[in-house]
Amino acid sequence: MAQLFDRVAILGVGLIGGSLGLALRRGSLARRVVGVGHRQASLDLALKMGAVDEATLDPLEGVKGAELVVLGTAIRLIVEMGAKVAPHLSPGVVVTDVGSTKSEIVRRLEKTLPAGVSFVGAHPIAGSEKRGIDAARPDLFQKSVCVLTPTAATDPKALRRVSDLWTAVGASVFTLSCEDHDAILARTSHLPHLVAAALVASLAAPDARFVGPGLRDTTRIAAGDVDVWCDIFLSNRAAVLDAMAGFTERMSELRRAVESGDRAQLAQLLAAAKSRRDSLRPE
Amino acid sequence: MAQLFDRVAILGVGLIGGSLGLALRRGSLARRVVGVGHRQASLDLALKMGAVDEATLDPLEGVKGAELVVLGTAIRLIVEMGAKVAPHLSPGVVVTDVGSTKSEIVRRLEKTLPAGVSFVGAHPIAGSEKRGIDAARPDLFQKSVCVLTPTAATDPKALRRVSDLWTAVGASVFTLSCEDHDAILARTSHLPHLVAAALVASLAAPDARFVGPGLRDTTRIAAGDVDVWCDIFLSNRAAVLDAMAGFTERMSELRRAVESGDRAQLAQLLAAAKSRRDSLRPE
Repeated sequence: MAQLFDRVAILGVGLIGGSLGLALRRGSLARRVVGVGHRQASLDLALKMGAVDEATLDPLEGVKGAELVVLGTAIRLIVEMGAKVAPHLSPGVVVTDVGSTKSEIVRRLEKTLPAGVSFVGAHPIAGSEKRGIDAARPDLFQKSVCVLTPTAATDPKALRRVSDLWTAVGASVFTLSCEDHDAILARTSHLPHLVAAALVASLAAPDARFVGPGLRDTTRIAAGDVDVWCDIFLSNRAAVLDAMAGFTERMSELRRAVESGDRAQLAQLLAAAKSRRDSLRPE
Repeated sequence: MAQLFDRVAILGVGLIGGSLGLALRRGSLARRVVGVGHRQASLDLALKMGAVDEATLDPLEGVKGAELVVLGTAIRLIVEMGAKVAPHLSPGVVVTDVGSTKSEIVRRLEKTLPAGVSFVGAHPIAGSEKRGIDAARPDLFQKSVCVLTPTAATDPKALRRVSDLWTAVGASVFTLSCEDHDAILARTSHLPHLVAAALVASLAAPDARFVGPGLRDTTRIAAGDVDVWCDIFLSNRAAVLDAMAGFTERMSELRRAVESGDRAQLAQLLAAAKSRRDSLRPE
């Protein structure tokens, strides 16, 4: 694969940032990858695993001379990190992120970054259950989906370069507006997490012994990291609340069918759900 | 393993009835297993697979001389089938079922069966996604849970014999009241199915491409058989509606935390759910 970038700075070398570093280095996609973190132990591990060529605790040091800056921190720190390094970025630098929600991050970063610096919002959809550099893998993005969320302000050339980056590490790249991204992810990812949490919270003391594969599957994601999910829900509130409202309406339909004992109606709702589930792309 | 029964009649040789037949014959737990069905093709397959020693389309023929009668049909046919064979059962015969809901079935069967015939309600919790004799396996009940639901009218000796049966085929046997069984299963099995159906029904047209493992896990059971699940919901209405009400309350708590942007409250709810999910017995 041809080299796509000269120097790439990854700010936040966790699961996503670390996996991106590994993939970039394995594919010789960047001349040099520098990792920035806030814990020396994680940076040492990133170096040892080969996720980065060099590592520093200092973001300003990290972005020096970088052609591409990847904001890979926790969602609530992405904008802050962008603002911190902004004054140190030269015109022509491309900045991107890996946040799971987009509207808020993109709107705020576009205001923050200096003229001549191009920002492209990105969400690689991969590996949500684990965190940290120890879980990073060079093939994390193989056969994954990465959504880019350009706005009217996005430089088409920067968009192309970020798209090439994700394609090169194995992702299928899709382009959505921030609003569409956030609404879709609210339904496909954020709502299921809230529902899983509510389901497991609905259990009573004697239930644990009688839990079968159905409940286990349905609630698996409720074991996800609390901080990560708080960030997601709070940075995508409007879309999450919309998705919850839609779900509540579907639950009410089912409740009414059960309550009235209307077998035909219940069967119709369950059959529609089954046919939709059957049509999801295979795992 | 010692022989537990002389002649066993299994009425309804599908996934559960067929797997029970296979396990009984493999373990030499019955002198003879007779299968009763309503389709000759299924009975032929049951014979070929070795799930039964003999097979008949006639329930009255099937129960002749049986020491144990297992009502293994679809839930809504269990009571009807019990009523049909009732006049042909001699005192001392033990009747049991495999229905996924208990209060309604047990109450109605206890009224239907003649004096001297003992009924023991049972629910082997196993293999809910598939149906039919083709999916039957002799080890289906290994490491599974089987709930027995005796009432004041249950003969203790019959209870012991049915308990020995399920223990012998590999299940851990628990005893619950019908009401407790139905309330627990409403939360651990019936509610998750309704929630999965509502989740998948909440998706919009462009979402399918962005479905990850989280949503797939959460909605897997929505692909279950519509008829089976209609039977379950409609025969356990009160407990299902209670479970739905509890779940709705948990969802409202989460919604309020998201709506108000109260991170501490949201984190507390998610952490409680996570710790409960983490404590479920391993898969």
